[in-house]
Amino acid sequence: MTDKITVVKIGGNVVDSPAALEQFAADFAALPGKKILIHGGGKEATRLSTRLDIPTTMIEGRRVTSAETLSVVTMVYGGLVNKRVVSALQSHGCNAIGLSGVDGMVIPAKRRSPVPVDYGFVGDIDPADINVGLIATLLDLDLVPVFCALAYDADNSTLLNCNADSVASAVAVASSRIAPVTLTFCFEKDGVMADVDRPDTLIESITPAKFATLHADGTVSGGMIPKITNAFAAIRAGVDKVRICRSDLLDSTRGTVITIPADEADR
Amino acid sequence: MTDKITVVKIGGNVVDSPAALEQFAADFAALPGKKILIHGGGKEATRLSTRLDIPTTMIEGRRVTSAETLSVVTMVYGGLVNKRVVSALQSHGCNAIGLSGVDGMVIPAKRRSPVPVDYGFVGDIDPADINVGLIATLLDLDLVPVFCALAYDADNSTLLNCNADSVASAVAVASSRIAPVTLTFCFEKDGVMADVDRPDTLIESITPAKFATLHADGTVSGGMIPKITNAFAAIRAGVDKVRICRSDLLDSTRGTVITIPADEADR
Repeated sequence: MTDKITVVKIGGNVVDSPAALEQFAADFAALPGKKILIHGGGKEATRLSTRLDIPTTMIEGRRVTSAETLSVVTMVYGGLVNKRVVSALQSHGCNAIGLSGVDGMVIPAKRRSPVPVDYGFVGDIDPADINVGLIATLLDLDLVPVFCALAYDADNSTLLNCNADSVASAVAVASSRIAPVTLTFCFEKDGVMADVDRPDTLIESITPAKFATLHADGTVSGGMIPKITNAFAAIRAGVDKVRICRSDLLDSTRGTVITIPADEADR
Repeated sequence: MTDKITVVKIGGNVVDSPAALEQFAADFAALPGKKILIHGGGKEATRLSTRLDIPTTMIEGRRVTSAETLSVVTMVYGGLVNKRVVSALQSHGCNAIGLSGVDGMVIPAKRRSPVPVDYGFVGDIDPADINVGLIATLLDLDLVPVFCALAYDADNSTLLNCNADSVASAVAVASSRIAPVTLTFCFEKDGVMADVDRPDTLIESITPAKFATLHADGTVSGGMIPKITNAFAAIRAGVDKVRICRSDLLDSTRGTVITIPADEADR
């Protein structure tokens, strides 16, 4: 396979809003070439947990996943949200196939060490373990894999809850073994902004050198720092470029493109 | 493809019991050749509905499916139970891939007429509409499709709740276009019994002629009548034979085999 592959990650702001999902599905369906979608669904999982009187505990943005919570996220990510997204894509003629990591053992993971923080049934993925052969086969059949953020721990025969951004990165890195990959993270802003309240301060391109400056002068701070750091890690591991944009800008060129130019490869 | 295909349907007595599922997964994984699994999960859906204060209405054994109930069955069948079954199979080295009917548009359905009874989001499947090409491709990849009883209504862009027995029959009939098919329904009894309380009254084989006698003398009655009638319909539509047995008898020859011998083909 020599086509390029577009890997896109969407989160709660898309999957929780019928209008946003409809718009996204139309735009995503229209993207040319091979593509893969990864979705979150955390807010819906929290809502269902609340209705079921199951406590939700987050530590540094990660859901502590008890056996009961694992059932909730399996229902919400693997069932409700995954099939909702696949249905929306099919209604736009995009031949989506919804999968979790246990299906065809496509995304294996290892349970995270309980030290120093026990997150429960939470896993981390090594891109080298991903069954990229199955992904390539599905893409060659013109199917569009839609992954929820559940991976499979074969050592303990259990699903594991994963961070959807991390699943997207791992799938993108693994897919770069078969074709050039662009990884797009959809979020609620146009992209990385110098001033989050001013759309005209969008930073269109970030390289390691530029990031060092933006970080040093405080332009980029908080949650954007790990996002950008992870983007560089994905690029160093094989991804061509990472784009961060609002979900309804998918079919435009607006957003922030993160790359590592050849002359910055050692930074 | 010339291999024979084994299509198996399991219900609540297997998927609700970790011990029964473990036993079943070991036996099913050991079955030689191409195979497909269809599962129910109705009791679990009823339990979740109760916890969420969503009323459960059954008419003649079929779940009336409101929009809220459709969300519940999408979570339970498509998420919780499907991934539980796939995980159990993977733990026994069976390379299962869990799918609903919307995935790869594999099982299209039409919403059932609201007259005379409005079942809501409930669908019926025409085996001729099933994407048997995708099923054949997955089987050729040595994957084992595991279907939940959710189909997709493309006309109305919605999932539809289906009867798992009907899904199994439709998938078996569709698969008979690519290879000879045996369809096995696992249920709580050894098979069809002359006296349900006496295992030694198992009826090992039923043909149309024998069924006419068993029906006339009252040996077979109640819920077994539609089961056997549907089995004959599946055979007339292309399935080689239908077997009814307890889930832990899958790897034995015990059970009731339903066939239509050549000399009874016109009955």
